[in-house]
Amino acid sequence: MPVPRNIIEQIKQIVPPLNGTLHKGQSGRVGVLGGAMDYTGAPFFAAMSALRLGADLSHVICAPTAAQAIKSYSPDLIVHPILKEDAPQDKVKKELDSLLSRLHVLVLGPGLGREDYMQNYAKVALNLARSKAMFLVLDADALWLIGQDLSLVKGYRRAVLTPNVVEFKRLSEKAGVDTSVPPDEKAAEVSKRLGGVVVLQKGPKDLIAIDTTGEAASLAESGIRHVLDEESEKVKEVIEVDVEGGLKRCGGQGDVLSGTVGAMLAWGKCYEDGAFGDKSISASRLPILAAVGGSMVTRTSSKRAFHVEGRGLVTQDMIPYLAKAFAENFGEDLQAGERGRL
Amino acid sequence: MPVPRNIIEQIKQIVPPLNGTLHKGQSGRVGVLGGAMDYTGAPFFAAMSALRLGADLSHVICAPTAAQAIKSYSPDLIVHPILKEDAPQDKVKKELDSLLSRLHVLVLGPGLGREDYMQNYAKVALNLARSKAMFLVLDADALWLIGQDLSLVKGYRRAVLTPNVVEFKRLSEKAGVDTSVPPDEKAAEVSKRLGGVVVLQKGPKDLIAIDTTGEAASLAESGIRHVLDEESEKVKEVIEVDVEGGLKRCGGQGDVLSGTVGAMLAWGKCYEDGAFGDKSISASRLPILAAVGGSMVTRTSSKRAFHVEGRGLVTQDMIPYLAKAFAENFGEDLQAGERGRL
Repeated sequence: MPVPRNIIEQIKQIVPPLNGTLHKGQSGRVGVLGGAMDYTGAPFFAAMSALRLGADLSHVICAPTAAQAIKSYSPDLIVHPILKEDAPQDKVKKELDSLLSRLHVLVLGPGLGREDYMQNYAKVALNLARSKAMFLVLDADALWLIGQDLSLVKGYRRAVLTPNVVEFKRLSEKAGVDTSVPPDEKAAEVSKRLGGVVVLQKGPKDLIAIDTTGEAASLAESGIRHVLDEESEKVKEVIEVDVEGGLKRCGGQGDVLSGTVGAMLAWGKCYEDGAFGDKSISASRLPILAAVGGSMVTRTSSKRAFHVEGRGLVTQDMIPYLAKAFAENFGEDLQAGERGRL
Repeated sequence: MPVPRNIIEQIKQIVPPLNGTLHKGQSGRVGVLGGAMDYTGAPFFAAMSALRLGADLSHVICAPTAAQAIKSYSPDLIVHPILKEDAPQDKVKKELDSLLSRLHVLVLGPGLGREDYMQNYAKVALNLARSKAMFLVLDADALWLIGQDLSLVKGYRRAVLTPNVVEFKRLSEKAGVDTSVPPDEKAAEVSKRLGGVVVLQKGPKDLIAIDTTGEAASLAESGIRHVLDEESEKVKEVIEVDVEGGLKRCGGQGDVLSGTVGAMLAWGKCYEDGAFGDKSISASRLPILAAVGGSMVTRTSSKRAFHVEGRGLVTQDMIPYLAKAFAENFGEDLQAGERGRL
């Protein structure tokens, strides 16, 4: 089932125009928090994908044990090795606070791991982001974190969760979703029980769901204004993305997705702040639009890279195709700017 | 002499289908243990070759002195710097145990070196892998390790040894193979004396041999079931691989081989576990099939890279050709998936 036309049109509205009117940063400043002893590729994939989709600046916030490797993958990333295991918590919190204030979105989880100090820093960052009403993407071991305490994210309508099969099963159980709920309705049920966060359930087709009809789905707490009629914001919506993807299931593709959703949320924030556009789209719609858009371009880039690499596909092959994948889904004009085609 | 048609057909059966039915990991999770003060390229070549042949995930387990360099070679590898010289042995053993439980195969030796602590950790890992009935590839200084104590590998029929000329000579001597044995029969004799491990003797043509007619070739100890008639498993088989290779003998090509054999063993493990296929191939056949398949694709990738680079060939040139080398030997359809050709 193709993504509804009106959703595509809404996504196109939050894409920053390429006509010379914006200055550096107004196409999105993205932050990725993750990367410690074991994982360095995951935060790189997320941060680089955000840039390659079209964000202006991409920051990685990581442990010193991961920083040199991540820095070496690309000079285009800004890597902050502030998550020191033995640093005073207050000092790191202050540094995080300052960093997050400069960003439009925080992607939390790629390469985070489960070491205690990293999980603690992730929690600090999540709470800071929430207090600033920042857009959030939660993936990988950030989903593990909220699994331990669902209140960390409950009711926060600027969050997008991107669980894979295993993570989704765990999250459903933690949220108390009955096993009798039909498979295609589970994502919406998780969203409802978490107070309206957007759930992007990855699979052969991606299901993106929001359900704000439950308790605790608070627009006010999420810092969402510009809603004409709050009652009309009681929504239940499930969008299926079955755009063709590749057939290889190598590790790291989920990190690309978290980065592309992050970039689109950063665009959404710039849109919300009035950098461009007509503000006709409510901030409450931005998470689901970004989730759908990120899913579409990630699947298409996987398809394109797979057509070239086949079984030998690795995740770094996908990143150069993100721009073309964007053009395929949303039009070459939007990708190449007003002056010409690629 | 071409590889027998029935062997090719058996190898094709253990290749994971590319039709969307498998999830992440079911095309193989490979581990490479090696990398310390001197060597960082070798474990990278092995781990990256496994990915580029088609494994889903590739882990490197190494010393902290090697980790940053290996991480920086590719964001697609997961690098665990747990082999600390001064760490408590029990702690490292526990970490190794946990890591190995997540893998389908362990490639032991690329860049291992001969420092005491690395040799000790390799021994710990080998024993753990054996206790878990994991598939094993032993190369380079892991062959040095078992040369000191052949009982480490004797009778373990899930192991493939990949000695070069020097390593093979040493191994033959340690195993007490008489110098009067004809050259083409030596590999089988080493296999027999080591209780049926598969020996891949590298050379102008590769000889892959198994001989389980000696003592100590125990299926039970190797955790091999699904054998209808254990007596029929008393086999002696030698397969010659003279697929055209390149003419440059630069260092590192053996690491590519250990990675490709490892990837095929990981596929074999997924096959054995029922992720795909009909289980018509006994687990006892998987090591020899993986060894033959790895030899074929490695030689072909060397040929292809050599045609481009000639005398200037270095090992990293081979890795991008692994997918094409696979397609050349086993068919483009199998490499590109059901939806199309590369």
